[in-house]
Formats: sequence, structure tokens, C-alpha cells
Amino acid sequence: MIRLETLENNTLRLEERVNAALGQDDETLLRTALAGYHPADLAEVMERLGNEDAIRLFRCLDSERAAEVLDELDQQKARYLLDNEVPERIAALLDLLPMDDAAGVLAESASPERQEALLSQWTDQEDAAEVRELLSYPKSSAGRLMTEKFMRLAPELTVEEAFAAIRRADPEVETLSDLYVVVDEHLVGVLSLRDLVRASGEQRIAEIMTRDIISVQIDTDQEEVARLIARYDFLAMPVLHREGTIAGIITVDDIVDVLTEEQTEDAFKQGAISAEPGVINAPYFSIPIWRVVKSRVGWLVLLFVAETATGAVLRHFESELAKVVALSFFVPLLIGTGGNTGAQTVSTIIRGLALREIRGRDAGRVLVRELASGVLLGLLLGAIAFGRAMWWGSGVQLSLVVALTILAICTWANTIGSMIPLVANKLKIDPALVSAPLITTLVDATGLVIYLTIAHLLLSQLH
Amino acid sequence: MIRLETLENNTLRLEERVNAALGQDDETLLRTALAGYHPADLAEVMERLGNEDAIRLFRCLDSERAAEVLDELDQQKARYLLDNEVPERIAALLDLLPMDDAAGVLAESASPERQEALLSQWTDQEDAAEVRELLSYPKSSAGRLMTEKFMRLAPELTVEEAFAAIRRADPEVETLSDLYVVVDEHLVGVLSLRDLVRASGEQRIAEIMTRDIISVQIDTDQEEVARLIARYDFLAMPVLHREGTIAGIITVDDIVDVLTEEQTEDAFKQGAISAEPGVINAPYFSIPIWRVVKSRVGWLVLLFVAETATGAVLRHFESELAKVVALSFFVPLLIGTGGNTGAQTVSTIIRGLALREIRGRDAGRVLVRELASGVLLGLLLGAIAFGRAMWWGSGVQLSLVVALTILAICTWANTIGSMIPLVANKLKIDPALVSAPLITTLVDATGLVIYLTIAHLLLSQLH
Repeated sequence: MIRLETLENNTLRLEERVNAALGQDDETLLRTALAGYHPADLAEVMERLGNEDAIRLFRCLDSERAAEVLDELDQQKARYLLDNEVPERIAALLDLLPMDDAAGVLAESASPERQEALLSQWTDQEDAAEVRELLSYPKSSAGRLMTEKFMRLAPELTVEEAFAAIRRADPEVETLSDLYVVVDEHLVGVLSLRDLVRASGEQRIAEIMTRDIISVQIDTDQEEVARLIARYDFLAMPVLHREGTIAGIITVDDIVDVLTEEQTEDAFKQGAISAEPGVINAPYFSIPIWRVVKSRVGWLVLLFVAETATGAVLRHFESELAKVVALSFFVPLLIGTGGNTGAQTVSTIIRGLALREIRGRDAGRVLVRELASGVLLGLLLGAIAFGRAMWWGSGVQLSLVVALTILAICTWANTIGSMIPLVANKLKIDPALVSAPLITTLVDATGLVIYLTIAHLLLSQLH
Repeated sequence: MIRLETLENNTLRLEERVNAALGQDDETLLRTALAGYHPADLAEVMERLGNEDAIRLFRCLDSERAAEVLDELDQQKARYLLDNEVPERIAALLDLLPMDDAAGVLAESASPERQEALLSQWTDQEDAAEVRELLSYPKSSAGRLMTEKFMRLAPELTVEEAFAAIRRADPEVETLSDLYVVVDEHLVGVLSLRDLVRASGEQRIAEIMTRDIISVQIDTDQEEVARLIARYDFLAMPVLHREGTIAGIITVDDIVDVLTEEQTEDAFKQGAISAEPGVINAPYFSIPIWRVVKSRVGWLVLLFVAETATGAVLRHFESELAKVVALSFFVPLLIGTGGNTGAQTVSTIIRGLALREIRGRDAGRVLVRELASGVLLGLLLGAIAFGRAMWWGSGVQLSLVVALTILAICTWANTIGSMIPLVANKLKIDPALVSAPLITTLVDATGLVIYLTIAHLLLSQLH
């Protein structure tokens, strides 16, 4: 029995034993070390090994586990295996995987030519044709995640007969929890195994199935599928062709992976890191430094160039800054507060859009709410700022300028922070790309204009 | 058949029809409007109604759907119903829900006194006792999410007998996909329904079950459970008492909810918004403005106070700033770049920690990597900054100061951005609390010290 607390020690121990066996070049020892481990754990250890050692380990695995390890591996290691292991073995292993997983591995880790070379070696060419079809759907669409192996029942079966059919089911069927009632390739009903259990033996499937079916199209985005599965607590979701016939089902385990991946993607977007597949899907230590720099430099340069606008603003007010040096003391404080307020708003709005709590037509209501909270926060922070400035001996006039600027900047930052994601959404740009750093940068230059204009108007020293 | 494209229009249409029926005070019309809708959709519409109208709608629902709506509703509306609907009905509805869901509703929306008052009215006092036990486990622990209704099998059963047992199973059993082999309340094996289907009728359960069981403890954190279920592609995870006996199972649908909730929580933490339950679990428009302000003001004030350090630094270098006003032109640019670089690093490290790709003992390796990318990014941006400053006519000396500062700040921001989450993790503080705004604020004051010290040393005008 494996307990959680020992799970991590477990992979560490596995790693030590694997390294010892590899060091002694002892294949029997290696096989013993690997016995009983879950493919996810084996994949983790392989990712930390060098390529040569990883392939030696991979060759010690029986087909079933090797196939699952292939599915679990990160892109970099999977690509190495696909390029360096005997092609016949790779083809055979892929054929063992559920189709959606095989398509996933091929799409992520093989060039189109290699995909075809491997698929043409499958013993089961019918399966190969189905995988080719999956690969033809757009990346991150429902078509890519679905499997065509699901449990079909005819509506005229009795419950008793349905049980018999389940017992005879193709062992490759992905889930038996949800059963699909199909007539002429059209989905006419769904029922859960649980419904079947509750029914009496002589009832007909047509009597106990649900006819209100929630389904998605083959080109629906996978995040949308995840949102629906989460909303309706489904274990699987049927996928239809445009013409209404059933194409396959998406199971919840793939959706859990989508959610986890999406979380990483969002975290990176919020940190203004470009979400390249080689960076967001790979474990931290496996990413080469040049790739890290590449994924970060784009946004940094863009934000840097945008931020130079602050220099232009300050140069424009050079004479004011020269006359009252104390004005510059408050610059980082004011723009920092604006950036923080904007970051809060932008996180709230992006989340609301992702969960569909906010829609395009709500722009007006959003603006009213965010303006209201911006003003309230501005009044509060402005009061604190006034006290702080007075305490520093900045005089009533300058302290008032600072306090008014805080009020104006908080209101302004909330406006920008709420409107820009909504505009992005309208323009079909992913609102999550509107990161906190972007909002901060935008608020910086405009905030300085607000600050120095207020100062110019109110400070008697400047007249 | 409900298609995705029409789903949103569907709830909009439902909303219109409900409003019309409520306006005409026509209960029959209301019942007709509600027919066939999924509880998740009904809950969404109820959340947008006023309390009075929501309860009128709620009273038109049959028990089964009413119970599920109660489970789906946001905290605010659920609390209103629990306080205002006839207690006997609420008690009966809760008893219909799976135990973990009933416990969830009670925990979120009822005071301990009301929880007890409602539980004491349940017809099935055994169920009530179990819910009381669930409520006794810490918030967001495995114990809170689990259900005690799972399918138990004895190891000596044949496959044939197991099928018969499944057909006789308690209809309240949460999942039939995973079957648990229990002897004396100890979990000795697991098997999936799929394994059972593949086996031949006379085989014994003990022969086909898996003995390598991955389980969690009753007090394991729910995010940990989510991580494990995602890693191992489980549909359910067994939960054990400290003494090793089985307590229940957690099903994947609850984990999908945890992942979605966690995503919101992370988004809010990264935006420096405090993750109060009334704010992160409630739809955007349902949160009162005072609550929004309350959830944001804490971090803002804290960051504001920390940011005043920048003023102190600038005051310290007052004479330098007075002599070379141009120094202040670069302040927002330099600290902005530091903040952006730090935000990138902090997002990467927090994600790596969450996915367990980075562990405590990796601190040294992380530092080396982040220093390396900090230096590379700093060299690149420093070169651009030098060009920009020269172009503005800032002179070679000042341009050099700016370029060197960028290099130093990028390196420093990457150090802070990687070390602070690791330290937080070590101290058992949630590293996700180390938000981009926090890092930005920390980099601001220290960045200014770096800038003005370099200026002080290199600028001949200051000597």
C-alpha cells in the first residue's frame, strides 16, 4: 500500500535504485527496481535521466507500461524516444494507447513525416486511420481529445441485455460509466451505468435513457469542454460532427489534464511569459536556459519600450522637477500604487470572463463597479498618503497633490484594468494576455501625466 | 438535444421565461419554463434573481432537482435559502444529496447552530451522523470531500458474484467505475469495472485486483489530492483514517471543482487580492462593492506602506537628484523593468513548486538558473537601454549608469523572484501569496538603491 507521505520518497528511492543499476550496467537489477511502479512515476524518473540512460530504462519495460510511460513523458524526452527507439516498437506501443493519447504523443513529439512513418507501421490500420483523423482536427479542439471507443447501446435492448453487452464490451472502450444510445450514428440518448443498475432487468434502454443530451462539436475549444464538464459534473462528454452524427467522447481524465495545463498557461501569461509549448509543458529543470530567455525576452522588450514613455513624460516636466526636487520622491510610490490597483482589477475581470460570469454586453456594469471600488480605494489610500507626506514634511500643498493623485490614479487604473480585458475579449484576443505587468506599464506613463499635471496646477512654487 | 452554441442562449431564454412567469405571478407557467433544465442552469438563473423571486422558483422544483440546485448555488443565495425556506424541506433536500455535497453546503452556508438544527431533522439519522463526521474534518482536507458510499467487494467473490453485487448496489453509491476490496475495514485491493469486464466469470476478485493502492489520509490537503488524481488519471481516490482503515473515497467530479476553484484562488493571489470565500466563490456581479474593497484594501495598504521605502531612498539621494535632474527620468523605467523581470521569475517558480518540479533542496540549482537568465536578459535590455539613453542625449556617463543598473536590477530581481517563493515554501507559507505586485514593490526600493549608488560612483558631475 502506497501512502501519500511516502510517495515522494518513493520516486526518490526509485531514482536511487535506477541510478545504481545503470551505474553497474545490471539489467536484472534495473528490472527489479522498476517492478510495481506506476507509469507516471517511471516517466518522472526518466525525465531526470540523461537521454542514453532514459532509453536503456525504457527498453526494460513491458509493452503496456512502456506505452503509458510514452504518454506521460514530457515533450523533450518523448521526442528523443520517438527519434531513437526502434520504430517498430514505437509503432506497436502507440497502437496500445487509447487513440486520443496516441494522437497526443504524435502531435507533440513527431514531425508530420515521422507521424506518417510510424502510423504506416501499425498492425491495426483501422486504428491508424482513426488516429490520422484525430490529428486532422485543430490543436486544442475537442476532436483532438476525443476517443472513438465508447460503449454504444441500441435503444431497444433490455437492461438485462445491456448488461450482457457491457460484459462483452471491447476492452479498449475508454469508460463504462456513461453509455451512449446510438441509432444510425445519431446519438439519441445517454445513460449512466448507475441508471442501469437501478433499473429492473426487463425495462428497455429507451425507457430509462436521458434524451436531454449536452454535447459539443468536434471543433469546440478544449477549455470550453472543460468548463462544461466542470459545470455539469460529467465523467464524459459526447462530441458530434457538424452534421450531427456522433464522433466520439471526451473523458474527464483528459479534462483534468487540460485544467492543469491551462493553469500553467494562465500563470505564465500573468507573469508576461510567452506560453510556448516547449516551455509550459516541460518540467522546470528540463528547459534549456536559452529557451527560458527566449520565452521571457519578447514581453520584457515590449514592456521596456512602452515604459520609456515615462521618461518622455518626466522630460516634458523637467522644469517642474528641477524646481521642486521633492516631486520626484513620490514617483515610484504613486505609479506603484496605480500598478497594484490595476493588477487587482485585471485579475478579477479576466477570471470573470473565463468563468463566463462577465460577458461582452456587461461592459457598462463592470465599469460602474470598478469605478466605484477605485474611488473608494483611492479615497482610503489618498488619506494615508496625505498623512505620510505631511509626516515627511512635504508641506500641505505637495501632500494634497499626492493625495489627489492617488485618488485619480486608483480610479484610472481600475478603468484601464477593467476595460482592456473586455476590449481584448471583444477583439477575440485572449484576455489572459493582458497581464499585470502590461497594465502596470500602461498605468505608469499615464499616471505620471496625471501627477505632474495636478502638481503644475496646484503648487504655488511652480507659478 | 442541447448543443454548445445554443447553451448560453438557452439560459438567457430560460431567464426571460422565468421573469415573464414571475411577473405574471403564474406558477404553472413557471413550472413549464423550468422543465428539462439542468440544475446547474437553474442555479445560474436563480443567482441572478432577487432573493424573493429565487425562493419562489426554488419552491416550484421537485425534490431531486431542488437538492442539486442547492448544491450548485453560490454561497450568498444558498445561505438565503437555508435561512428562509421551511427547515423541514431543506433538511429533506440535504439528505437527498451525496454526503460530501450536503456537508459542503452546510459548511459554506450555515452557522454551526443551524447546521445542527438541520441535521437533527433528517429522517436518516445514520446519514446525519456521517455528515457530522465529515464536518468535523478541517476545511479543504480530503475528509471534507470524501463520500462513504462506495462499492465494496469481498476478495473471495467470483467475477460473476461481483456483477450480481453491483446490480444490487445501494443506488447512493457515488461511483461504480472503481470497486474497493475491503477486509475488516482495511482496503486490500482496488479494481475497475473495466477489469471486471475483461475477466472471466469464475475468476476470484483477489486474483484480478491491484494490490498497489495509492491512497491519501483523511487530513491530506485537497490540492494534494487533486495533484495525485491528475497525475495518476484516477476516477476516484481512496481516503484512509490515520490508523489505516478505509474512511471513504473522493471522486473526480469534486476534484474538477477543486481545480477550478484553485485556479480562481491563484489568479486572485497573483493579483494581490485576499482569497476570502465570499469573494472567490461568488459570481462577479453578486459581490457587494464593500466586500470587493475589503478584499483588495489589505494588500494595497501593505504594498503602499512598503513602497514608501522608495521615497526614503530618493530623499537620501536628494542632492544627487537635485544636481542631475535627468537621473529621475529613468526611475520608472528602471524599477518597472525590475518589476517585470521579477514577475516572470516568480510565476515560473510558483508554478514549478505547485507541480512539484521544484523542491526545497533544489534552491541552489534554481538560483544558478535564474541568475544565468537574469544576467542574459540584463545584458540584452541593458544594451537597448544604453542606445535609448544616448538617443535622448543623456551623455555616455549617464547612459552607462542606466545600462549597468538594468543589468544589476535584472539579476537582482531574478534572485529575489526565485528565492522568496522558495523561502515561503520552506516556512510552510503558500508561495502563491508571493504575488507579482509584492515582488515589484520589493524590487522598487532596492532597485533605486542600486541605481543611485551606481550613479553616485560613476557620474563625474556628482564628485
